[in-house]
Amino acid sequence: MTKSAAKNILFIMFDQLRFDYLSCAGHPHLHTPHLDALAAKGTRFTRAYVQSPVCGASRMSTYTGRYASSHGAQWNGFPLRVGEMTMGDHLRANNMSCHLIGKTHMKADVEGMKRLGLSADSVIGARQEECGFDIWARDDGLWAEGPKGFYDQNRSPYNEYLKSKGYPGDNPWAEFANAGIHEGNIASGWFMEHANKPANIREEDSETPWLTGEAMKFIEAQGDTPWLCHLSYIKPHWPYIVPAPYHDMYGPEHVVTAQKSPREHQDPHPVYNAFMNNQIGQTFARDEVREKVIPAYMGLIKQADDQMGRLFAYLEETGRMEDTMVVVTSDHGDYLGDHWLGEKDLFHEPSVKVPLIIYDPSPDALRGATCDALVEAIDLLPTFIEVAGGDVPHHICEGHSLLPWLRGETPDWRDWAVSEYDFSCTPMCPELGLSPTDARLFMVTDQRWKFMHAEGGFAPMLFDMENDPEEYNDLGRSDDRTDIITLMYDRLGQWGRRMSQRVTMSDAQIIPRQGKVPGGGVGIFIGHYEENDVPQDARTKYTGKASEDYT
Amino acid sequence: MTKSAAKNILFIMFDQLRFDYLSCAGHPHLHTPHLDALAAKGTRFTRAYVQSPVCGASRMSTYTGRYASSHGAQWNGFPLRVGEMTMGDHLRANNMSCHLIGKTHMKADVEGMKRLGLSADSVIGARQEECGFDIWARDDGLWAEGPKGFYDQNRSPYNEYLKSKGYPGDNPWAEFANAGIHEGNIASGWFMEHANKPANIREEDSETPWLTGEAMKFIEAQGDTPWLCHLSYIKPHWPYIVPAPYHDMYGPEHVVTAQKSPREHQDPHPVYNAFMNNQIGQTFARDEVREKVIPAYMGLIKQADDQMGRLFAYLEETGRMEDTMVVVTSDHGDYLGDHWLGEKDLFHEPSVKVPLIIYDPSPDALRGATCDALVEAIDLLPTFIEVAGGDVPHHICEGHSLLPWLRGETPDWRDWAVSEYDFSCTPMCPELGLSPTDARLFMVTDQRWKFMHAEGGFAPMLFDMENDPEEYNDLGRSDDRTDIITLMYDRLGQWGRRMSQRVTMSDAQIIPRQGKVPGGGVGIFIGHYEENDVPQDARTKYTGKASEDYT
Repeated sequence: MTKSAAKNILFIMFDQLRFDYLSCAGHPHLHTPHLDALAAKGTRFTRAYVQSPVCGASRMSTYTGRYASSHGAQWNGFPLRVGEMTMGDHLRANNMSCHLIGKTHMKADVEGMKRLGLSADSVIGARQEECGFDIWARDDGLWAEGPKGFYDQNRSPYNEYLKSKGYPGDNPWAEFANAGIHEGNIASGWFMEHANKPANIREEDSETPWLTGEAMKFIEAQGDTPWLCHLSYIKPHWPYIVPAPYHDMYGPEHVVTAQKSPREHQDPHPVYNAFMNNQIGQTFARDEVREKVIPAYMGLIKQADDQMGRLFAYLEETGRMEDTMVVVTSDHGDYLGDHWLGEKDLFHEPSVKVPLIIYDPSPDALRGATCDALVEAIDLLPTFIEVAGGDVPHHICEGHSLLPWLRGETPDWRDWAVSEYDFSCTPMCPELGLSPTDARLFMVTDQRWKFMHAEGGFAPMLFDMENDPEEYNDLGRSDDRTDIITLMYDRLGQWGRRMSQRVTMSDAQIIPRQGKVPGGGVGIFIGHYEENDVPQDARTKYTGKASEDYT
Repeated sequence: MTKSAAKNILFIMFDQLRFDYLSCAGHPHLHTPHLDALAAKGTRFTRAYVQSPVCGASRMSTYTGRYASSHGAQWNGFPLRVGEMTMGDHLRANNMSCHLIGKTHMKADVEGMKRLGLSADSVIGARQEECGFDIWARDDGLWAEGPKGFYDQNRSPYNEYLKSKGYPGDNPWAEFANAGIHEGNIASGWFMEHANKPANIREEDSETPWLTGEAMKFIEAQGDTPWLCHLSYIKPHWPYIVPAPYHDMYGPEHVVTAQKSPREHQDPHPVYNAFMNNQIGQTFARDEVREKVIPAYMGLIKQADDQMGRLFAYLEETGRMEDTMVVVTSDHGDYLGDHWLGEKDLFHEPSVKVPLIIYDPSPDALRGATCDALVEAIDLLPTFIEVAGGDVPHHICEGHSLLPWLRGETPDWRDWAVSEYDFSCTPMCPELGLSPTDARLFMVTDQRWKFMHAEGGFAPMLFDMENDPEEYNDLGRSDDRTDIITLMYDRLGQWGRRMSQRVTMSDAQIIPRQGKVPGGGVGIFIGHYEENDVPQDARTKYTGKASEDYT
């Protein structure tokens, strides 16, 4: 086991941040000096994949260290089964606290909690309800409201904060933080025509600075106990709108050309086609949409980077940069019109690949390194367990610690990564004539090939990432690469048979049972004919004078 | 959904009862008139497979309605994860009680219960600890004792019963019920040389009559509430010893020839070879062993059948035969020397196939029918849920109700069945150089072929059950049937991708979310550019005069 000198972990997640919208990752117009500086002090992973390209499922994988079909919370709003072990369970068992500031998108298994008599009033119940975190501030940043009420039934601490700052109304998140103003009227960020307007809020009160401030307060309040702080930002996720001065730092001239090709419309895979033709795909196919949305998206990232500067400076000043691992990642990317798609959901790189930067204060850690290994989001929890000084329980956690990579070691590593997507709750499920059970996709990617299997009787998709890095040319239905398709199905089969649910027995508990202690030491003799086959001292309970004869 | 007129369910399970050791299943010497009579009143399933050929894992599948790798309790003594839903959870939700008399081999997830603060003192905790059953009498019948103490840490109500009847000593189960007497000394049934001796106990006090009596007392005590009684016998499982007069009803002349062939020793599959060469295989390869053990095994079954006569007569007398479904099955079979093996563990028919007889008092149920459909043990729980009047939660229960078959209907049905075996706790795991994770086997069988995949880089096994019903000729490494092997791997792949953990969301909960209510009714607008794209009444919360201007 590789060790880290880090005592604490600052685990920063952005929401919907593309892997390539950082200057250190090569964006031509967006300058992110603070995140770049972190990368210069640590390792940037260039092939980090999420376990599902959608908020809820991806996060539940990150927080449990398990694939989406292992923990079962396979989409937004699917409750995480009561008792499923989380980051908090694992870290607290290793004397590290585990706190949340921001978003999890976790839905509690209220029925399961009721079945087990767990009340949210108790510490145990509260942690079950909050994905294992102790809550500094939970705010999922989705205070949407319609005729049926709120999307999110929780109370928003961010709205309370805004009210304390004098913002009027019941839902200043919607009216101010996520809306502009047009001729005196609310210009809601829910409608992307308004994306180029400044959000109607003081910049320092917007979501990203608010969460940064909370993180600084949290760190300030910590004593000697090692902590993990999951600082989980809401942005640059939609609604795409950002306060001044970020709203007009970028314009259409900074929008990179959409990575899409007319070839992708020629005989497309039916599932891909359904996504291209949905509302989101149709909207993002329009240049005017990209030209309004992407500058706002870039502004949100620029604001985030400035907040990173504020936060990292605070860590330096307080000495925390010397004893704290800092991790920056995202829960998934954003198509932004690439591949004729918006949002995320499918497995092209802009959606399923995320930024991942890890700074480890250990003296032997690399600085300014990049790592091309196939990393999965489920690798974070094992990394954190090792930082906390624990042994990774591999019968529960399905990933592997990244600590060796941070030192330039080359551990035994996976040759392929897996991601999944459950779209049973989307209109594409009935449109494609699928049952909710069959509306599921699986990606297998190695260093060369990316493969997607869709349940429900479809052909697979296959891209040659070396010769077609744009992922335009789907080879899934050609006869050219049946060898690769067979290989990928073999891998998917192997993965499907993985041992994911034997969570109550570790190898360390199993191995001593394999021994050949006669009768197991407890008098179980199977397949023995003669008494004398067995050592006398192992069978003393079965010998001696019979005390009665009933025969 | 097919309905049953049954109000109650008497769910009888024997332990280690082979499918072919009943006269109705064609045994040439063993006459089981009472079980035959039940079959004559109901349906006998001729191809019923358990989900794992070992007590604990098989039972956990039966009690949860889920494959072994779905519930994770994949071997004896592997705790069933806290919160995993059981027969008791499902039936009580449908107003049917769920009681246990006898064995479950369930080990509680004590660590998980502790993590969730569940105490065995509470009703919820007690059910978690007892696999969801309410306990009339739990007795796993394995009161083995060695230098390290007892195999089973529970208290044996059967031992208490024997003591109340005057049997002396601390463990009369071992000294009397499961031992004979030889020259005044204990002749323990743990050693098969004693199998032909009568057990040193009054026949009416032996395990099978005791449990039958408890079942009659249980039924007597029931009021109007519908009940399921899991009457779970300990026998004919080893120790192989039976009281008079059953101990000498059968002799070597009634032992059928072992189903084994020297061909099976020619270049055997490495995993199969390891099992043939273990202590049990070596012992059962000896004729003298079979000639002592099998008559005792037959005597135990004969006694069981007589107890069925007693129990069924009681049901007739009390009117319960008119309102009670009666199910008889086993948790796995017994090789008894077939295929050079003893015990169970692998997938030959004597091990993985079990007897299954279902009597349904409904007027439209078939009488004296046999059904050759591929049935799995996980089909029982859905059957019982339907008897209780419930809808089967197919996002949790992986099997299908058998009720249609009982009426001669032909439901849409599986073409192949799956069983699994985890041998990580056996000496064969290290002998074969396997990690505990890789010591796992998977069977796929259809009406013609039986296939076995072993993790760890081995070739598969394949038998043609039509041309080689004895399962002597392993085609897994021949080039003749690569088509079938490919097909079987495809099926195993499909099964591996099954949706087994999305247990918190039913299809009925998912389907309404697919609808196209604008913004989901809660104001979530994704991919909308113009406000006017969206009906005004769906976005009222995002419109109107801005109450302040902060821009």
